[in-house]
Amino acid sequence: MQNTTSDAMANAIRFLSLDTIVHAGEGHQGVPLGMAEIATALFTRHLKFDAANPTWPDRDRFVLSNGHGSMLLYSLLYLTGYEKISLDQVKTFRELGSHCAGHPEIDPACGIEVTTGPLGQGIANAFGMAVAEAYLSARFGTAVVDHYTYAFVGDGCLQEGVGQEMISLAGHLRLGKLVLFWDDNKITDDGATALSISEDVAARFRAADWQVIELDGHDVDAVSAAITLAKQDSRPSLLACRTTIGRGIPRVQGQRGGHSARLFSDDADAARELLGWPHAPFVIPADLLAAWRTAGRRSAADHTTWRARLAALSPDDRAEFERVQAGELPAGWREVLLSYKQRAAADTEPKPGIFASAEINDLLVEILPERIVGCADLEAPTSHKRSLAAFTAEDRAGAYVHCGVREHVMGAMANGIAAHGGAIPLAVTYLAFSDYERPAMRMAALMGLPVKFVFSHDSIGVGKNGPTHQPVEILAALRAMPNMLVMRPADAVEAAECWEIALDCRHTPASLIFARQALPTVRTRHSDDNLSRRGAYVLAKPEGGPRAVTLLATGSEVSLALAARDLLQADNIPTAVVSMPCWSLFDAQDADYRHAVLGNDTVRVGVEAAMRFGWDQYLGQRGGFVGMSGFGASGPAEQLYTLFGITPAAIVAEAKRHL
Amino acid sequence: MQNTTSDAMANAIRFLSLDTIVHAGEGHQGVPLGMAEIATALFTRHLKFDAANPTWPDRDRFVLSNGHGSMLLYSLLYLTGYEKISLDQVKTFRELGSHCAGHPEIDPACGIEVTTGPLGQGIANAFGMAVAEAYLSARFGTAVVDHYTYAFVGDGCLQEGVGQEMISLAGHLRLGKLVLFWDDNKITDDGATALSISEDVAARFRAADWQVIELDGHDVDAVSAAITLAKQDSRPSLLACRTTIGRGIPRVQGQRGGHSARLFSDDADAARELLGWPHAPFVIPADLLAAWRTAGRRSAADHTTWRARLAALSPDDRAEFERVQAGELPAGWREVLLSYKQRAAADTEPKPGIFASAEINDLLVEILPERIVGCADLEAPTSHKRSLAAFTAEDRAGAYVHCGVREHVMGAMANGIAAHGGAIPLAVTYLAFSDYERPAMRMAALMGLPVKFVFSHDSIGVGKNGPTHQPVEILAALRAMPNMLVMRPADAVEAAECWEIALDCRHTPASLIFARQALPTVRTRHSDDNLSRRGAYVLAKPEGGPRAVTLLATGSEVSLALAARDLLQADNIPTAVVSMPCWSLFDAQDADYRHAVLGNDTVRVGVEAAMRFGWDQYLGQRGGFVGMSGFGASGPAEQLYTLFGITPAAIVAEAKRHL
Repeated sequence: MQNTTSDAMANAIRFLSLDTIVHAGEGHQGVPLGMAEIATALFTRHLKFDAANPTWPDRDRFVLSNGHGSMLLYSLLYLTGYEKISLDQVKTFRELGSHCAGHPEIDPACGIEVTTGPLGQGIANAFGMAVAEAYLSARFGTAVVDHYTYAFVGDGCLQEGVGQEMISLAGHLRLGKLVLFWDDNKITDDGATALSISEDVAARFRAADWQVIELDGHDVDAVSAAITLAKQDSRPSLLACRTTIGRGIPRVQGQRGGHSARLFSDDADAARELLGWPHAPFVIPADLLAAWRTAGRRSAADHTTWRARLAALSPDDRAEFERVQAGELPAGWREVLLSYKQRAAADTEPKPGIFASAEINDLLVEILPERIVGCADLEAPTSHKRSLAAFTAEDRAGAYVHCGVREHVMGAMANGIAAHGGAIPLAVTYLAFSDYERPAMRMAALMGLPVKFVFSHDSIGVGKNGPTHQPVEILAALRAMPNMLVMRPADAVEAAECWEIALDCRHTPASLIFARQALPTVRTRHSDDNLSRRGAYVLAKPEGGPRAVTLLATGSEVSLALAARDLLQADNIPTAVVSMPCWSLFDAQDADYRHAVLGNDTVRVGVEAAMRFGWDQYLGQRGGFVGMSGFGASGPAEQLYTLFGITPAAIVAEAKRHL
Repeated sequence: MQNTTSDAMANAIRFLSLDTIVHAGEGHQGVPLGMAEIATALFTRHLKFDAANPTWPDRDRFVLSNGHGSMLLYSLLYLTGYEKISLDQVKTFRELGSHCAGHPEIDPACGIEVTTGPLGQGIANAFGMAVAEAYLSARFGTAVVDHYTYAFVGDGCLQEGVGQEMISLAGHLRLGKLVLFWDDNKITDDGATALSISEDVAARFRAADWQVIELDGHDVDAVSAAITLAKQDSRPSLLACRTTIGRGIPRVQGQRGGHSARLFSDDADAARELLGWPHAPFVIPADLLAAWRTAGRRSAADHTTWRARLAALSPDDRAEFERVQAGELPAGWREVLLSYKQRAAADTEPKPGIFASAEINDLLVEILPERIVGCADLEAPTSHKRSLAAFTAEDRAGAYVHCGVREHVMGAMANGIAAHGGAIPLAVTYLAFSDYERPAMRMAALMGLPVKFVFSHDSIGVGKNGPTHQPVEILAALRAMPNMLVMRPADAVEAAECWEIALDCRHTPASLIFARQALPTVRTRHSDDNLSRRGAYVLAKPEGGPRAVTLLATGSEVSLALAARDLLQADNIPTAVVSMPCWSLFDAQDADYRHAVLGNDTVRVGVEAAMRFGWDQYLGQRGGFVGMSGFGASGPAEQLYTLFGITPAAIVAEAKRHL
């Protein structure tokens, strides 16, 4: 069967993967053994990459969306010569601290573009990378931005809703430089795909205006020819590759066990026999390794000419390109926010929380052209388009992606944009629908991608649209997520401060959470300092004696706490109000600051139109809480606040109850 | 334009909706004005229902998946004569306490089958109802179970991933009695659908083996004829109805504002002029109202004959049918669990947590045939199929639905099954992927549907598959959700207890969360009492003096706490171990019990391989915590426990630090 050098090179992937999985005692052999020829065609004949310069900005992107097949990627990275992926490193597959983790973990310097594993995320990330490429290419020209994005995908990724959303939106946007390779092996973990799908997958892609090419995934030449066609088409392409899962292992190939059944050295021996691979475990013949290493530098010359083209840009353009690639912000952006903040402090007119964010973002359009805003069919109520043009099939210079009612792919697209580099993604929807994109948000947090997740309609303040649209538990659910900065500003001043913090984040996603309803200005005295940066701060000091009560509040409830403070002060109870826009930033402060803010020896009452869950860490033994204890209701917002007892009077009563 | 009685009846919907929305000052007119003729065709000529007996088990189910168009439903319910939906009630649309809430809120007695609003959920619920119908029909025969499920759906529901998953799975399962009516009006909130979709929706459905009928949605006869075709086909059907959004209002019809722009009485007047509706606001001419009321009883005779057929069942079958319809459990099920529990207490062999749940469920197969188990392509590792047959296009008697890698529709299907009644749904996947079905879980909690969400692989105990597959924040995120019982059993004994609690739940969904890894038996002494029912209990008492330390643990960490207790006791530190399988049940106990369990004057240390978030409510001023402070890693589970410091020695150190 090993008729050509390409076939032999594919077998180098296959046996390196197989030997490593046997060595590790577990792994998922289905993908590396089933997609070895596809990978060979892509990496040796098409992929623009340079293993010696893995982070070359204009490299083609490669995403292994079926991330459980990670051994395929590690084999490729070793064979093509990525420095950090030595053979010894490969042998640590699935061990603690290995670059070769159970699922690929983002590390572009190693050739791993994104973390994959949860199915569907990878292809949606790839879609985001293609969006970023198109946008950057429109901004900087094809001389410096002109690459493809390729993704390997299994049945699972295509069954997931996020994958389906991606198919629809990528087809709509005609992202012709996005190419998927479907490992059409008719097997999932449960067994035959016929157990759970009878859909005509090719027809489904065609319905969304993709080019679909059906071919034999074990024929390197056929795959290569299909890639050529894919690159020529203005539509995104699906290469539907018929493959045999676990190909080469007589005991499991083409069967359910091909996916990840435990393999033994007998299996490796039998595969050697079947495929005519006489080499000992982990031995790659020198000629094949040399051929692979040559493939690993196949675009080295392209890289050199690209550098020349970059150098030929105008100094301004080049500096700007390098700035956005480095993820650095330009001079002046901070001043825009500061100036807005100063005006906001003087503005006594209440303003919908989300509109403060919208105004801020509109002011940043000129100075931060690297922002790409996705929104899930809520343009008017979230208002983050304003002067942005739409990113469309015809106009790649637009920075606003109408994502349709597809929150999940919006979030995963944002991750892909961030992982691509050169752009800062925002993803905008209602907070109640954050659950729809939560799997993508988790991946942003896990990868440390600086995505800005923007949410409006953050509480019962939504009013008559009722409990489906009223978050009560979602603030807590997001705060529980590691490495996710959750911010809920109290007014336009804090909105500006939180945006400053979010834009400063380079390795952490941020959730910026805004009210739908009009919020009065609570920070009426301007301060150049970003008070929100410490997570919580004393907004109003006690008067007339030592502090007896501390009211801790966030977002729309800060003004209620201030009103309650007035009532308590009128009763001669010295009361402080603490605004807590970001818990995790506060938690990172030193103990002295935290104790000073919290007022450790005082009665503390948390105030938030949400569940108490998580609040107790700040409330202490004499702690009270005014908020929600269940889902909301449909009715006018002000009536709901009364119904659920979130009022200044209720705050006063709760404080007194604990005094 | 008002040529026939049917057209006039449609206008009765249209103007009642319009007048109510003008009266309320807000609402979404797009759906009621655009789908009035479709609704008329369905409700007056096809829908099997009896407004005087709204909860007739064999009624056709109707779901308004585009729930923002709720006024359409309320108009229908009033016109057809649902007692609770009087005209006065309709006039309270969107007011606090109204049956006519902003979005429909589940109340079968009012004719509202499920709560809808978050897009895509409703059609996925409808799919679940169709699964329940097919299953119950196979169980009890078509004499008593033989109905259709109809859903109205807008573009948003079809863009959402969960909707796409539904299309694929419903087509695969050939649920021929599921009929969708697509309000193909080319408009979403952002404006033209062309902003975000260019997909051939009909082709997409056909790719998934649906019957698709394209027609004029304002032609009552055409809609009726299409419904007849839909009912005759063995495939699920999409009626793609071309409509005009907001039809009748000259200022906004067919435009973006048709969706939900504020309307005024001038708009209502103009619509009256355009459509020739001379009646005053809220006035429905007597003949039309009579025609509608006749439609509301159109299946009354069917209902009578159905009751006769029910009466003709064998007494056993009838009793069983009535039992499952009432959601009551049969005699003997509790004893099955008790017997298992007794054996488990005596079993010293460690067992994977999820397998305890699998064993329990397998023992229940005979006695609880109303369970329908959905699983997202994880049959082997979750093991909840065992002796169940698969539910397939050919065999509706099977109770195991291979959902494919589609967690979201699995969860929403489970909600639909529960809302249908007559069956108890389980939805099984890994805990890390609960995020994918979280929007459906939220709806289960909001609706109070007794769905059993079963999760495996609940911590870093997953090991080498790494952080994508290791939940750390998800326990907290679920515990924050109101009305969701979150249970994490420590061993097979607690597993049996938690299953007993979950099965007793009639109005609350439960999340049953299990470890992948083998857990030693910690409850080695059998007790007939269900100790888990109080949420937390003292598992090991202090010895040698008054309690100095209380270790609070859940799930797989309880055995670590016990080992730590041994070490502390060896140092003469009297230590109690509290197992806390369910926080919310514990929170509901009286203060005396809670204080006694928590050991208020002791050092308390929480132990859980998860984030601390939420734990502080139990830890007090002298509280410590041993758990995770960030995401996990890829490596052997036991090494991860050491790496992240979740060991008996670390627990001891944390306790001593606070002593």
